[in-house]
Amino acid sequence: MKLQIKLSNLLLILNVLICSSVIQKSLGQDKNNRPPNFIIIFADDLGYGDLGVYGHPTIQTPNLDRMAYEGQKWTNFYAAASVCTPSRAALLTGRLTVRSGMSSNKRRVLYPNSSKGLPATEITLAEQLKQVGYKTACIGKWHLGHKEQYLPTNNGFDYYYGIPYSNDMNMVVDIPYWEYWKQPNEAIKTTHFNVPLMRNTEIIERPANQNTITGRYTDETISFIKKNKENPFFIYLAHNLPHIPLFVSKKFKGKSKRGLYGDVLEEIDHGVGKIIAVLKEEGLENNTIVVFTSDNGPWLSFELNGGSAGVLRAGKGTTWEGGMREPGIFWGPGLIKPGLIIGLGSTMDLFTTFSSLAGAKIPGDRIIDGYDLSETLLHGKPSPREKLFYYRGTDLYAVRLGDYKAHYITEGEYGQFGKKEAHNPPILYNLSTDPEERFDIANENPNIIKEINSLISQHRSKLVLGQDQLVEIE
Amino acid sequence: MKLQIKLSNLLLILNVLICSSVIQKSLGQDKNNRPPNFIIIFADDLGYGDLGVYGHPTIQTPNLDRMAYEGQKWTNFYAAASVCTPSRAALLTGRLTVRSGMSSNKRRVLYPNSSKGLPATEITLAEQLKQVGYKTACIGKWHLGHKEQYLPTNNGFDYYYGIPYSNDMNMVVDIPYWEYWKQPNEAIKTTHFNVPLMRNTEIIERPANQNTITGRYTDETISFIKKNKENPFFIYLAHNLPHIPLFVSKKFKGKSKRGLYGDVLEEIDHGVGKIIAVLKEEGLENNTIVVFTSDNGPWLSFELNGGSAGVLRAGKGTTWEGGMREPGIFWGPGLIKPGLIIGLGSTMDLFTTFSSLAGAKIPGDRIIDGYDLSETLLHGKPSPREKLFYYRGTDLYAVRLGDYKAHYITEGEYGQFGKKEAHNPPILYNLSTDPEERFDIANENPNIIKEINSLISQHRSKLVLGQDQLVEIE
Repeated sequence: MKLQIKLSNLLLILNVLICSSVIQKSLGQDKNNRPPNFIIIFADDLGYGDLGVYGHPTIQTPNLDRMAYEGQKWTNFYAAASVCTPSRAALLTGRLTVRSGMSSNKRRVLYPNSSKGLPATEITLAEQLKQVGYKTACIGKWHLGHKEQYLPTNNGFDYYYGIPYSNDMNMVVDIPYWEYWKQPNEAIKTTHFNVPLMRNTEIIERPANQNTITGRYTDETISFIKKNKENPFFIYLAHNLPHIPLFVSKKFKGKSKRGLYGDVLEEIDHGVGKIIAVLKEEGLENNTIVVFTSDNGPWLSFELNGGSAGVLRAGKGTTWEGGMREPGIFWGPGLIKPGLIIGLGSTMDLFTTFSSLAGAKIPGDRIIDGYDLSETLLHGKPSPREKLFYYRGTDLYAVRLGDYKAHYITEGEYGQFGKKEAHNPPILYNLSTDPEERFDIANENPNIIKEINSLISQHRSKLVLGQDQLVEIE
Repeated sequence: MKLQIKLSNLLLILNVLICSSVIQKSLGQDKNNRPPNFIIIFADDLGYGDLGVYGHPTIQTPNLDRMAYEGQKWTNFYAAASVCTPSRAALLTGRLTVRSGMSSNKRRVLYPNSSKGLPATEITLAEQLKQVGYKTACIGKWHLGHKEQYLPTNNGFDYYYGIPYSNDMNMVVDIPYWEYWKQPNEAIKTTHFNVPLMRNTEIIERPANQNTITGRYTDETISFIKKNKENPFFIYLAHNLPHIPLFVSKKFKGKSKRGLYGDVLEEIDHGVGKIIAVLKEEGLENNTIVVFTSDNGPWLSFELNGGSAGVLRAGKGTTWEGGMREPGIFWGPGLIKPGLIIGLGSTMDLFTTFSSLAGAKIPGDRIIDGYDLSETLLHGKPSPREKLFYYRGTDLYAVRLGDYKAHYITEGEYGQFGKKEAHNPPILYNLSTDPEERFDIANENPNIIKEINSLISQHRSKLVLGQDQLVEIE
């Protein structure tokens, strides 16, 4: 038997083979050459010291630990405020919330009876990315207004699935708020909190079953990735937990050595692992950046049902380091240069950095407080951020400049042990040598205080206070 | 031209080629089939929170972090005492020092005027390993007796190079000890401490130049590895630092963001990296176990010249967690199963574990307090250790059983804020849920206290107090 093929036919076959391989390659390259996908995983009330790789002795977070090792572990990464609403508004707009009116001295956050939300004039990261072709989803806690016009789908997100505010709201049992929490964990039920679960603008479950909420948020994230993988996508996955009340699925109940709080974190970590696995399965791992951080420090009033700020001082609600410094993990094997980053970063920088990486123009008509961290993330260059403003409500309590932090006002946690004190000269710490904020070095460093004072004058000279959006109720 | 080879010649050539490859292979296998090499790197006064991977925000320890990630990171690993001499005696003998007399209520450690040291009847890990063919070296701080008969070379070590006690001893300036440390770091000179540097039993330098001591210890370790690589070897590398006074080589001066203390740690970490690199160069990495830990918690009296216990309570000298719990990193890519280990471990377990892995018989004529951790190290099985006795001097201050720790006596740091208090019933903490030792749960758990009390009775029924070796002076 003789195999005969005409030369022309052979060329044709070769041509087809070569072309299909080129097409395949170019499709593959397309996935990698297009702007990167972004996933922000945002925990609620998680402390600086709550993850294995940030030093917790008994909470096991192997997936987040691995992300930190394979990617960048930031040790001076900050939430933009020490409570939910302003922290979230600042992350999504890249702006201090004194500018947008999303912080207030009268009401700390939005409540179910609040009538307003993020002003329509604010531009969110989702809006930035949508305009350059991204598919966008918000999954989880919103807390920037629960009326339809304020919901994620009116703020640049194609899709929303989640509880629109805190999981401890709409309490329906007849016990005063602080009394309620003195009960053992077994008495705390998800039915006691009549919070809605929404899909887009519809309530699909009420009260939301919080026992399964962490797993469902993870599943929704995975499903959005699978459905939208042909486009660049941005997912803002804002878990409602580990904010109290703490709920966990059966599989994770009693799993950790750190009690219910640890169980909740281990379920979140497990979900992170599932998301990473799907990115790998779908061949997206080389063109996706996953960030993990939290909205503010641990709510220490809740003792073992709250987290730990590790070595840092105080927690949620305060402008001590424990109130605002958070784990900051950036993962993306094809993009992020692995390493420990001790330069400064803020959740507000995500707006500027991701806009820049996606090719979306930064709005020129307003002050943006975010910095572009791309060179640090991609090439390990020093962070461009050298300063931080620590606001509580609309008051500037402290300022960090490089290694130094000056406290002009200090105050304890809300309601609990809050004594407000002004300091003139400010208390001054070197946070690099003294991360625990123990040794006031104001007397020895008048020049640094001068420099920080002039930074504040400069900042204030350009500050236009936004109209308070939190104060109005129905 | 025609190439002609007789068949017999061809076979001969083939035979030679095959044989030499077999010989090479078998040589290589020998190196891996013999018992493993052990390197214990023992820091001085390093705190639980001082390494990157244990949560420090500004001290950069990339080599130790990588070891923890590639190997096992233990989060409940303990020094056997909260000060130098007893901690070191217990590590090397696998026994609580109440048995050997190497702890005392009258003098906490050995001093340059001490006349005694580790009793000859005690069996060290070096003696154990030497008897099964290991080459053994002690490099660094000894602190178990500086008279010839007590030196490492009379305790199972083939080689000794180091300062035989603490680096703050033999102070030659005419200022009271505690006054001296109020000076700025620039005023602290290595010549102020007339400590000897010894090779075997000879003093080769006095005062030892401490500016270069960390680097020299690393170099001596590397040189011992290279000279002894054909045998199984055991190196006990006990750095004198970061115990005060803090000294660092020019290359590391000002390198860290954490001040001089951070510089010192980063130089130690750099040395660890060099040792790992040499193990790889020499093809020893698959049959060597490297452990990193410290003798006790941070000396908090020295403020920024002392370390940090991270989230743990108090420091050196105390039986709070910060006094005795330490980083515990086990590295050995061919042997150690990577993972986070939250089970209990003690430096005393190194005696038993390494004896077992080396095939050295555990002495049957005495109580050994160490456990064999091999199954945990090699296969990730749960640690066999469930209890810990926290002694201060010869008094039992606290006991840990599983998650629970009962404090019968508490006391602050030496000299500084030391108020001794007895507790009956004891203070009880669950260290897994409450690693910070904040919430006394004694009232709710009488049965656990009963169990711990009976454990103590059992322990005491077999305890023969060794004769005090620290009290006698010249």
